Amino acid sequence: MKKDKVSSAVIRRLPRYYRHLSDLARQGVVRISSSALGKSMHLTASQIRQDLSCFGEFGQQGYGYNVESLRKEVADILGMNQGHTAVILGAGNLGRALLENFHFDRSGVRLTAAFDVCPELIGHDISGVPIYPIEELEHYLSAHPTSIGVLTVPGSVAGEMSERLIAGGVKGIWNFTNSELHADSGIVVENVHFADSLLALSYFISEAS
Amino acid sequence: MKKDKVSSAVIRRLPRYYRHLSDLARQGVVRISSSALGKSMHLTASQIRQDLSCFGEFGQQGYGYNVESLRKEVADILGMNQGHTAVILGAGNLGRALLENFHFDRSGVRLTAAFDVCPELIGHDISGVPIYPIEELEHYLSAHPTSIGVLTVPGSVAGEMSERLIAGGVKGIWNFTNSELHADSGIVVENVHFADSLLALSYFISEAS
Repeated sequence: MKKDKVSSAVIRRLPRYYRHLSDLARQGVVRISSSALGKSMHLTASQIRQDLSCFGEFGQQGYGYNVESLRKEVADILGMNQGHTAVILGAGNLGRALLENFHFDRSGVRLTAAFDVCPELIGHDISGVPIYPIEELEHYLSAHPTSIGVLTVPGSVAGEMSERLIAGGVKGIWNFTNSELHADSGIVVENVHFADSLLALSYFISEAS
Repeated sequence: MKKDKVSSAVIRRLPRYYRHLSDLARQGVVRISSSALGKSMHLTASQIRQDLSCFGEFGQQGYGYNVESLRKEVADILGMNQGHTAVILGAGNLGRALLENFHFDRSGVRLTAAFDVCPELIGHDISGVPIYPIEELEHYLSAHPTSIGVLTVPGSVAGEMSERLIAGGVKGIWNFTNSELHADSGIVVENVHFADSLLALSYFISEAS
């Protein structure tokens, strides 16, 4: 179904499609035209048709899109049904915010464990996720093959921790540290740079004034 | 210096330029060619020249870019010298992660206060930033004109809180709640959707396997 090379801008819009379609489905909307979907997403109808055409044939002339089936197709494209699993490295404020408030399962990811160095945390669990000592990482990963390592450790140990995750067989790293990690040897890295987002906001504010 | 309409993809890359140029400056690099800068940023030299040409004339044929002056130019473009100030609404895990670990000042933003409903937090400060009761928000904003409101409250109150920030005169909202807020009436909204980032990672992992 997937075509060879889809631009990263299109891929970055897919999760938004998924969110909007999920909202529509929850509201009981059964079908929607590309122009109505575009309106709610602040995109043009032709951009929507063009984006989706990267992945196959969806919708029907004169009918529009079936919301639920398009939602499922987008979920498939996003790999939400691949049974991805994740572990968190670092149960500090940010790690805990993810453990307590972020719904990994809504993205099709099962969070199975967290690791930390802090003796007070180890042995406890947060939102049902056990916290293990970081020394047990290798053992855990060999017993529980894991797709995604979430890095919420201090930037100073980001490189070392990502190497341990890669050696342990993870396929992707969700990096919340300030260190920019680069993908190599088949590993995918998604860097979350809060500063980039704040600077973009700063730009748009300055431009608007 | 700024041209009329710069594509959002270019704007999204600017903070990365800023980060890379800051790294280079710290390493003592005085000048760099567009191809070397491109290499370190995983972009082509022509993309770099094209991106920067949106904002004016930088660099010189045969010389390349002066790292420090380009860094300063990019900082200016990003509005880092506009004296932006910010307040955080919600000092839970995520708010605290930002208070304790995120360097607002490195993005040219001065974080002046945080607001919460939790009696145990109020009156204290975190990393030197005072925590006030949320009832004092309007009073505070009228006494301290503020550019940016950071929303780290539960999604259920995101709409109400953003209205109060807008009424209080903020120019931009940095939204970490799951509720998608839309910009209107001259307000800029930057939504940080963790799920979008995780789903993009999920896509790239699935594509790579």
